[in-house]
Amino acid sequence: MIQLRSYLGGQWLAGSGSPQTLLNPATEEPLANASSVGLDLRGALEHARTRGGPALRALTFAERGALLKAMADAMQGERDRLIELGIANGGNTRSDAKFDVDGAIATLLEYSEISKALGARKFLVDGEGIQLGRSARFHGQHIAVPRHGVAVHVNAFNFPAWGFAEKAAVALLAGMPVLAKPATSSAMVAHRIMEVLAAKKILPEGALSLLVGSPGELVSLLGAQDVLAFTGSGDTGVRIRSARNVIEFSVRVNIEADSLNAAVLGADVEPRSDMYELFLKDVVRDMTQKAGQKCTAIRRIVVPKDVIDEVKSDLIELLATVKVGNPADEDVRMGPLATASQLSDARSGIERLGGTVVFGDKQEKPAKGFFLSPVLVQSTGDAVHEHEVFGPVASLLPYSENPAQIVARGNGGLVSSIYSEDQAFVEQVVVEIAPHHGRVFLGHHKIELSPGPGTVLPQLVHGGPGRAGGGEELGGPRGLAFYVQRVALEGSRPVIQKLIG
Amino acid sequence: MIQLRSYLGGQWLAGSGSPQTLLNPATEEPLANASSVGLDLRGALEHARTRGGPALRALTFAERGALLKAMADAMQGERDRLIELGIANGGNTRSDAKFDVDGAIATLLEYSEISKALGARKFLVDGEGIQLGRSARFHGQHIAVPRHGVAVHVNAFNFPAWGFAEKAAVALLAGMPVLAKPATSSAMVAHRIMEVLAAKKILPEGALSLLVGSPGELVSLLGAQDVLAFTGSGDTGVRIRSARNVIEFSVRVNIEADSLNAAVLGADVEPRSDMYELFLKDVVRDMTQKAGQKCTAIRRIVVPKDVIDEVKSDLIELLATVKVGNPADEDVRMGPLATASQLSDARSGIERLGGTVVFGDKQEKPAKGFFLSPVLVQSTGDAVHEHEVFGPVASLLPYSENPAQIVARGNGGLVSSIYSEDQAFVEQVVVEIAPHHGRVFLGHHKIELSPGPGTVLPQLVHGGPGRAGGGEELGGPRGLAFYVQRVALEGSRPVIQKLIG
Repeated sequence: MIQLRSYLGGQWLAGSGSPQTLLNPATEEPLANASSVGLDLRGALEHARTRGGPALRALTFAERGALLKAMADAMQGERDRLIELGIANGGNTRSDAKFDVDGAIATLLEYSEISKALGARKFLVDGEGIQLGRSARFHGQHIAVPRHGVAVHVNAFNFPAWGFAEKAAVALLAGMPVLAKPATSSAMVAHRIMEVLAAKKILPEGALSLLVGSPGELVSLLGAQDVLAFTGSGDTGVRIRSARNVIEFSVRVNIEADSLNAAVLGADVEPRSDMYELFLKDVVRDMTQKAGQKCTAIRRIVVPKDVIDEVKSDLIELLATVKVGNPADEDVRMGPLATASQLSDARSGIERLGGTVVFGDKQEKPAKGFFLSPVLVQSTGDAVHEHEVFGPVASLLPYSENPAQIVARGNGGLVSSIYSEDQAFVEQVVVEIAPHHGRVFLGHHKIELSPGPGTVLPQLVHGGPGRAGGGEELGGPRGLAFYVQRVALEGSRPVIQKLIG
Repeated sequence: MIQLRSYLGGQWLAGSGSPQTLLNPATEEPLANASSVGLDLRGALEHARTRGGPALRALTFAERGALLKAMADAMQGERDRLIELGIANGGNTRSDAKFDVDGAIATLLEYSEISKALGARKFLVDGEGIQLGRSARFHGQHIAVPRHGVAVHVNAFNFPAWGFAEKAAVALLAGMPVLAKPATSSAMVAHRIMEVLAAKKILPEGALSLLVGSPGELVSLLGAQDVLAFTGSGDTGVRIRSARNVIEFSVRVNIEADSLNAAVLGADVEPRSDMYELFLKDVVRDMTQKAGQKCTAIRRIVVPKDVIDEVKSDLIELLATVKVGNPADEDVRMGPLATASQLSDARSGIERLGGTVVFGDKQEKPAKGFFLSPVLVQSTGDAVHEHEVFGPVASLLPYSENPAQIVARGNGGLVSSIYSEDQAFVEQVVVEIAPHHGRVFLGHHKIELSPGPGTVLPQLVHGGPGRAGGGEELGGPRGLAFYVQRVALEGSRPVIQKLIG
């Protein structure tokens, strides 16, 4: 069996101790082993800080952007292999696996484009100069410089390529070295990406490291100049944020956690209309793509009470056509969940939601593989606003007058969506739900090739308040802010102007 | 004796239980009592959220800015009284008290000016629209909307007017209601400001509340839409950040804590030159203004080893001229520390710094009042980089080649300063220390009326990484970001363009 190693301190290193076994979640066939036991994490972080950091800071934004382009090209060259690994190790359909790999490549290319506008500088110039005194000599200027630590990225299992690339692209462009920790269960994709990048020596030494296996004491080794970006469960987010050193040294932390994303259907939308069909299509895509294992997937379907029965029967009809099975089979539309524990969590989560299961067999137990059919729940209880089931599961909720109040009960989310052509209604809902979200998607049938609310675009911010973790990533150049320290320069204007160039 | 009440839910309320007594720190004369025991904090927060929030959000930025102007005018009308209270209750010299009150008024006026550029909108439009698809119809636009919670401001004892105003100005302009909690020991100034503002009904109901006394369970009552800005000790910052609800609900927290601000003298600066004299003047001002009780005060004086003896004797000569005593006396240049416990902490802190006390009587014990003379310590130990003594205390440290490494040992600070006319040296030090700071002050003798590094200007960001708490405030419009939720609107271009107006 393949033994996955970690790439730390510029070397491939195998852990000792009893390894974790990575499976094919459709067949439960063991594919690889990984262990991080005994690896020198402190040394790896210090190598990144002392070798990777200075090397990246010596480059201009344009030069760092060229590295991102080279990373994208290398991944493009390995695309078929990465897709196969996504299918085998991630339980992805071919379409799901492409979504992950192509999303990764597109994000790297987008940040490579962004680097061009930042050009020949090595740090960001933030805003115009400011006259501070009566004379123009007393001058202020904000700049933003790369932090001198390491960017630790703890990625989720669901997007092993995209999750890795979207965080790495922004950190590297900002000028910070990265140590990425993929979720172990689906680590074969990120591991292969690292193999390709290391073999081609695309990045300066120390600029990118990969820890495969348990994070061990990783979080406790971070200091004031380091940053930690985490995508995963709210419970793990709480543990990270509670770490003594994170609190004492103000380690900058970004968390993307749980989210009960809502899709709201306007009362103006007639069943069978183009807008109605778009709504159904987006809901079904979000429920079934990646077997619903997307942080941005629609979890709450909020519809006028007058049409709830019609929506329900239409969704049931569409969900019934989704063939669930081994994604190695071409006609399968939805694969298994990623692990046995994800399946167990999803099953108990469905119980926890309460309400009535109007579609899906919540107790199906195939002999092999971590399969769950799409599940549609109808409920008016509190749990649907408080508990995220990370699988092909959504709740159908009626509203009478104001859907915004229902949406807000999620207490902070990544994205919610509105499907309506009534501008006043759209504006009212947007104003009320905006403070609870990082993104609001306004579905419209006239947009060609709309990706729906579940796709994270690098141009727009990704994150959300409250339950969603209070974080923010991407958003084009906005994403760089997490990796730099903004500092005000205050003093003599000629000195400052010479300094910023 | 005066019983200070709290202004909560639009009413003046007195706590029960045994009150805390506010003293004149120069005479130890009791001035007032305060207690928050039994006050309905949950109700007060809910009143702010449900009355103050909607009222502020209904206003445009320009209208909110007009409120700030009216606040500034009201404080200007009460200026003499506020200064007297600062002298009596804060141990401030008249000059210190003016610094506090005038800083408050200037910051309110600055944010009132900033409101004009934001004009008739009620939320921020962040950047240009973005074409997301092949056709221009698929469109993205970031906006930033006021959070729907309450902004809790826990202020430090040292700037009862300025600290209150600088936080309130930004939150109110952003559109969030404020509940301010001044440090109890010096609360008479903020209490008087609230009395004036409430009597004149300058703000909408619920927009501004004041809690005088212990915070009690205040922090534990905050949720996902609330924010908490705290200025004070690192230890209290740790407690706030460790609160269960803060971690679980991602309550947005900004902390300004400890900082070992350094002032670096360049090797090019000749003793007796204008630059040298400016350096000495800034050091002595920062050590003695407010009796050194400023988060931005110079704590580490970093000078070339060849001139350390000369700097030391010059500082000793200047510090010896500073008359310490009751600030009610006109010829006194430095008053007492704010409380008995501050004095006790400062005295034990001087011991903890180690090294040699080259100026100041570290054990003086006047019969009444919390007095401490300026203290200059010479040391090469670690403690001067790790322990902030919050009083008129600084350490003198030599460097041979690279002062930046010494400065960085502070592990994150609010501001450090460089005094040099050697542009290459200035640039090298700025580049190395910038990631560790929120502000870098470049002293220059040609700047007229330079306030020195210790003055916080509303145009420039205030905060710092690591030990300083990892926060950021002010910086002109940048400060608004803390109080708003950035959200990406994604959808049909005409719909979004109509929505943002």
